[in-house]
Amino acid sequence: MNIFLQHNPTKLYFGQGQISQLSTEIGTKKVLVVYGGGSIKQNGVYEDVMEELKKAQATIFELPGVEQNPRLTTVHRGVDICKSQEIDILLAVGGGSVIDCTKAIAIGAKYDGDVWDLITRKVPIESALPIGTVLTLAATGSEMNPISVISNWETKDKLGWGSPLVFPRFSISDPTYTFSVSRKQTVYGIVDSMSHALEHYFHRTKNTPMIDGFIESLLRTAIETGPKLLKDLTSYDHRETMMYISTTAFNETLSNGTDGGDWATHRIEHAISAVYDIPHGGGLSILFPNWLEHVLEDDPSRAKMLAMNVFGISSEGKSDLEVARDGAKALRSFWDSLEAPNRLSHYDIDDTDIELIIDKTFIKPGVGVYKELDRESVKDILIRSL
Amino acid sequence: MNIFLQHNPTKLYFGQGQISQLSTEIGTKKVLVVYGGGSIKQNGVYEDVMEELKKAQATIFELPGVEQNPRLTTVHRGVDICKSQEIDILLAVGGGSVIDCTKAIAIGAKYDGDVWDLITRKVPIESALPIGTVLTLAATGSEMNPISVISNWETKDKLGWGSPLVFPRFSISDPTYTFSVSRKQTVYGIVDSMSHALEHYFHRTKNTPMIDGFIESLLRTAIETGPKLLKDLTSYDHRETMMYISTTAFNETLSNGTDGGDWATHRIEHAISAVYDIPHGGGLSILFPNWLEHVLEDDPSRAKMLAMNVFGISSEGKSDLEVARDGAKALRSFWDSLEAPNRLSHYDIDDTDIELIIDKTFIKPGVGVYKELDRESVKDILIRSL
Repeated sequence: MNIFLQHNPTKLYFGQGQISQLSTEIGTKKVLVVYGGGSIKQNGVYEDVMEELKKAQATIFELPGVEQNPRLTTVHRGVDICKSQEIDILLAVGGGSVIDCTKAIAIGAKYDGDVWDLITRKVPIESALPIGTVLTLAATGSEMNPISVISNWETKDKLGWGSPLVFPRFSISDPTYTFSVSRKQTVYGIVDSMSHALEHYFHRTKNTPMIDGFIESLLRTAIETGPKLLKDLTSYDHRETMMYISTTAFNETLSNGTDGGDWATHRIEHAISAVYDIPHGGGLSILFPNWLEHVLEDDPSRAKMLAMNVFGISSEGKSDLEVARDGAKALRSFWDSLEAPNRLSHYDIDDTDIELIIDKTFIKPGVGVYKELDRESVKDILIRSL
Repeated sequence: MNIFLQHNPTKLYFGQGQISQLSTEIGTKKVLVVYGGGSIKQNGVYEDVMEELKKAQATIFELPGVEQNPRLTTVHRGVDICKSQEIDILLAVGGGSVIDCTKAIAIGAKYDGDVWDLITRKVPIESALPIGTVLTLAATGSEMNPISVISNWETKDKLGWGSPLVFPRFSISDPTYTFSVSRKQTVYGIVDSMSHALEHYFHRTKNTPMIDGFIESLLRTAIETGPKLLKDLTSYDHRETMMYISTTAFNETLSNGTDGGDWATHRIEHAISAVYDIPHGGGLSILFPNWLEHVLEDDPSRAKMLAMNVFGISSEGKSDLEVARDGAKALRSFWDSLEAPNRLSHYDIDDTDIELIIDKTFIKPGVGVYKELDRESVKDILIRSL
């Protein structure tokens, strides 16, 4: 293993009814409630949150309308409210997009210039407002990590960034709050969670057997639970399992002691959706199997482990490469069975902007850890994905 | 799953050279350094710690001589120093015994009466001095949990207790600091860590597949690594693996969402070592397989999972009970292969004090979760263990 610091300061309140923790956590503060397109007003979550905040005698401000790929313009609106109203704490009510947007508002509120300076790392992040979250979508893991992704629609850039200062202080994860998530969004969530686990899995660090086994357990559980959940979208047990999987897949549990894994697929996906604004989970389900098939040709070792320990594929009478290819095939056919998108043509994307997407992928240097990709490799993965 | 709060505030600095974090963590404070029988003066750890503390310009006090089953009298000595010298922070340098003792000193230092009132829960714990640890033995997990066990040699009671206030603020885990641990102590550490994982595993909560898989990964890794480590006690990789296993086995990673598992074996072991002062790991290696063989007769379900998912035992053509029994046998023979003690006679314990040990086991009501044990059951387990 590598040396590491294990420390996640987020308090995760998990389970039905945990919204009751909200009033104590917020108290009498000035709170800005950030949310998305209004689904929380249909499924009762908004009411639950407001009831708790009123019980706490908090002073409430609201920022609705966060997009699925949250935009810098929305972050600016939130920062303005924080500054003009002297907000004490931010409360994200929604999925990863809402939480990511809230994290950006939190740093922007404490900075005199444009928050984009901080996201692009031109200026170091030195301070942030505290954040709490009420999760309504099991996917990104943003509720218990210090990561955020923001789209600048002017420059067509979609950038991932992070700071220990934006770990949520607390997150409330009630599986019943995800009951009304559509089948399609549920599939995206399953794919996104599994992608995070898979990207952690493809690391280059030696002597990590226990953590590798954790990742394999998470993936096996997702594979077992996903199809059952899609047959019964209001099953508490299955929603609970997927909600805990999605948080655990990206809260550092799976990266302690490793190099963090290979996030090339996320980089390419961000590049695509900076240009086309497609759903993150859909982009990942298209790209990851093609990335896997690209990299396993050079080094089949971990794809072989995936095949055997996650998909139960036998290695008898097969070369490492054959087992690895069977693993990639099994992943592909599992996601196909969920009816996750498997080609860019699903979103009407052809090869027109392929060079632009490659440029955007390399907006920061260093794409890939398991295999460092060059432009040719990214092109190969994109062509496989068309 | 059950509802739960996931929140471990300890900062774990893991890996070679991480002692360099100590000076920043302690600063110029008044620190009481707590340690055991002096092995840290032979293996260089004491010097490393003192060098860091001097660099920080801390004011240093020392409490040496903590016993393998730390005693109330030693806690009293530490509390006296804290009160008379107005200590700001405690630094435990050692294994679980030293850390457990330090936790008790931390609460005693902030209480006007006898700390035993707090340990016996006669008076609620309301305050504690902060604690840091430098770990030198991979076993109890005390470096990243809020639990402690203290022996009162006057009343012959050995009591487990806990409070969120005694989570260490930070812990430094450098695998090289365990290189000089003897073969025998290393075996005890392996058994103790595996016991914690096994006790977590025997819970009664439904719908916990991912966490069950985490426990299985930890156990498989211990089974693979343990024998290799015993053949090469200064292997960095194997010491590293066992050190991370021991912390993870008891830092709430394995109990999130479950009822916490069945700790009956720990209760019985504490009762025995309250009377006979035997090493904790040795007591567990004797008791756990006998506990397992006792409980699986009523309900073989989880012992069967253990057999199949940890020991790779096939269920073909066998009843659940037969598979479960094979699992218990496999665990027994694994610990035998490490030459861990397997009978109480190893410590010259016969049935003389069996009723007293049963009394001590029931010092707090409720022994067991997977199976709630009565006096007869505890007697059966003890007789199997003679």
